[in-house]
Amino acid sequence: MKTIRTCITLLAITFAGFTTAQAQDPLPSWNEGAAKQAVTAFVAKITKEGSPDFVPPAERIATFDNDGTLWSEQPLYFQLLFALDRVKALAPKHPEWKDKEPFASLLKGDVKGALAGGEKAILEIIAVTHSGMSTEEFEQIVKDWIATAKHPKTGRLLTEMVYQPMVELLAYLRANGFKTFIVSGGGIEFMRPWTEKVYGIPPEQVVGSSGKTQYEMKDGKPVLMKLPAVNFIDDKTCKPIGINEHIGRRPIAAFGNSDGDEQMLQWTGAGEGARLMMLVHHDDAAREFDYGAKSSIGTFSDALMAEAKEKKWTVISMKDDWKTIFPPKQ
Amino acid sequence: MKTIRTCITLLAITFAGFTTAQAQDPLPSWNEGAAKQAVTAFVAKITKEGSPDFVPPAERIATFDNDGTLWSEQPLYFQLLFALDRVKALAPKHPEWKDKEPFASLLKGDVKGALAGGEKAILEIIAVTHSGMSTEEFEQIVKDWIATAKHPKTGRLLTEMVYQPMVELLAYLRANGFKTFIVSGGGIEFMRPWTEKVYGIPPEQVVGSSGKTQYEMKDGKPVLMKLPAVNFIDDKTCKPIGINEHIGRRPIAAFGNSDGDEQMLQWTGAGEGARLMMLVHHDDAAREFDYGAKSSIGTFSDALMAEAKEKKWTVISMKDDWKTIFPPKQ
Repeated sequence: MKTIRTCITLLAITFAGFTTAQAQDPLPSWNEGAAKQAVTAFVAKITKEGSPDFVPPAERIATFDNDGTLWSEQPLYFQLLFALDRVKALAPKHPEWKDKEPFASLLKGDVKGALAGGEKAILEIIAVTHSGMSTEEFEQIVKDWIATAKHPKTGRLLTEMVYQPMVELLAYLRANGFKTFIVSGGGIEFMRPWTEKVYGIPPEQVVGSSGKTQYEMKDGKPVLMKLPAVNFIDDKTCKPIGINEHIGRRPIAAFGNSDGDEQMLQWTGAGEGARLMMLVHHDDAAREFDYGAKSSIGTFSDALMAEAKEKKWTVISMKDDWKTIFPPKQ
Repeated sequence: MKTIRTCITLLAITFAGFTTAQAQDPLPSWNEGAAKQAVTAFVAKITKEGSPDFVPPAERIATFDNDGTLWSEQPLYFQLLFALDRVKALAPKHPEWKDKEPFASLLKGDVKGALAGGEKAILEIIAVTHSGMSTEEFEQIVKDWIATAKHPKTGRLLTEMVYQPMVELLAYLRANGFKTFIVSGGGIEFMRPWTEKVYGIPPEQVVGSSGKTQYEMKDGKPVLMKLPAVNFIDDKTCKPIGINEHIGRRPIAAFGNSDGDEQMLQWTGAGEGARLMMLVHHDDAAREFDYGAKSSIGTFSDALMAEAKEKKWTVISMKDDWKTIFPPKQ
């Protein structure tokens, strides 16, 4: 009897799935146009058995940059917002920061002054906020922070500053047998605590920058302590290296938004068979941000635009190609 | 009509699966006993919904050492056999090797003499045989080699020197919702070309030691060149580090066979909830090899045995727990 009930359920699911698939557009937040067409045509062709472009499911690897591709990155990378909040939280234990840059400026609320120290200042801020605890402790700190952290301009939760069209794209690719990966310059341990919930991407499919860790016994229990030393910076030419190290297969589709993604798209495009390379272009000041060649965050240089044109990578105009930018408020 | 046919197929599959599951032992190469019992009891308890030990499928991560755990490692790690063969293949291009150790001894067929130089000699052999080509070229070299490489003692293909009971265990865990990973001191790029075919483990679920790579343009096409420099040695305390870096979740089951796996088992065991830690013990001179505390390859020290006893890790006796060791000849 139990088996028969299972079968009836299976039948019901099958019929329901069939009807839904016909009725619904899997990419409702995308306007009809070249970008949406590039996605659906690519998926149709690589999933069609017997076609010369068919790709077996195991090889359907898609990689996504995170900052500026899946969620916003202005006015500052959100991980930097996290680090700044952590400096404030840790300040009572570090009275010496009152007279030490970049911390002194930060604690006075002068973010611009603090970051005037450039990469050195940023690395110092990252080091003190991303080390000195176990990986488990750090995970909990990120989880607690991301649960309430809000965007300085929109006031929305940072986890609601994700691009609805890209969330739909992730789901659409997975529904078509893809494994979706994040390949981001952001910290691997900063992203993993929330990517499954927000994007449906599990920790083992997140590639990112990392610090060194050390295996230690603490009260008889093994822990991985986070050290103040860089292990890997997952950006530019290191994105293909990170992909090779973590995934060990070449993606057939890759999505980015800045010069840091150039080599990931080159690497993806250099494989044989059908390929899809796309770049999100931030040209929508009204609904998000308008930046590009001149921005130091998420630089989309003229050279990258020229390369995209030459190599037929699809540039997504947020203004023209996306019906909505962010998910509805929860 | 098509949908109805699909449903009939679904019903057929459902009934077939139901009958097969009842009729077949998923671990036929395991003798009845404590080791097999430990596996099946663990799987039963973590898959039982509503039970306090239930683990959701996403968290069912199992990690396996490779050398000595999934396939043999005597009289030499098989990757070293590969490197020795490559030295011979490359020798015509390196006339200087005739007078240079460890190559001179190797080319005279004196493996023992060549390896007398210890770790330095081994690293030199690995460097010249595992770098200087692109990752794609290396993959092809490994594929060509493994297709015909045979074991020096048994004469069987190296891909047939895998442990049939462990191959069954991998399949059994996957059938119960597990993701199975290799976490090996062996080279990640040496294993990936064949682990999917031999173990059903895809490249993205292989963690191992690696050399550094560099992104370069070669004839206008991007390649990752393999450099003669160590990137990561995935052994001992670095196994938990590799697991954290690649998987980002703590395994709930881990399988090893030597001192190099101690920390992986400690790390796995330190998580909350039900856990399974097992060590393969090579005590079967008649059917495989008998080695342990005194072997420099795959050392299973007395201290590890004592720790296993204390922490209730299950030690698998190849002699007593396994009905067969290797798969049938193909």
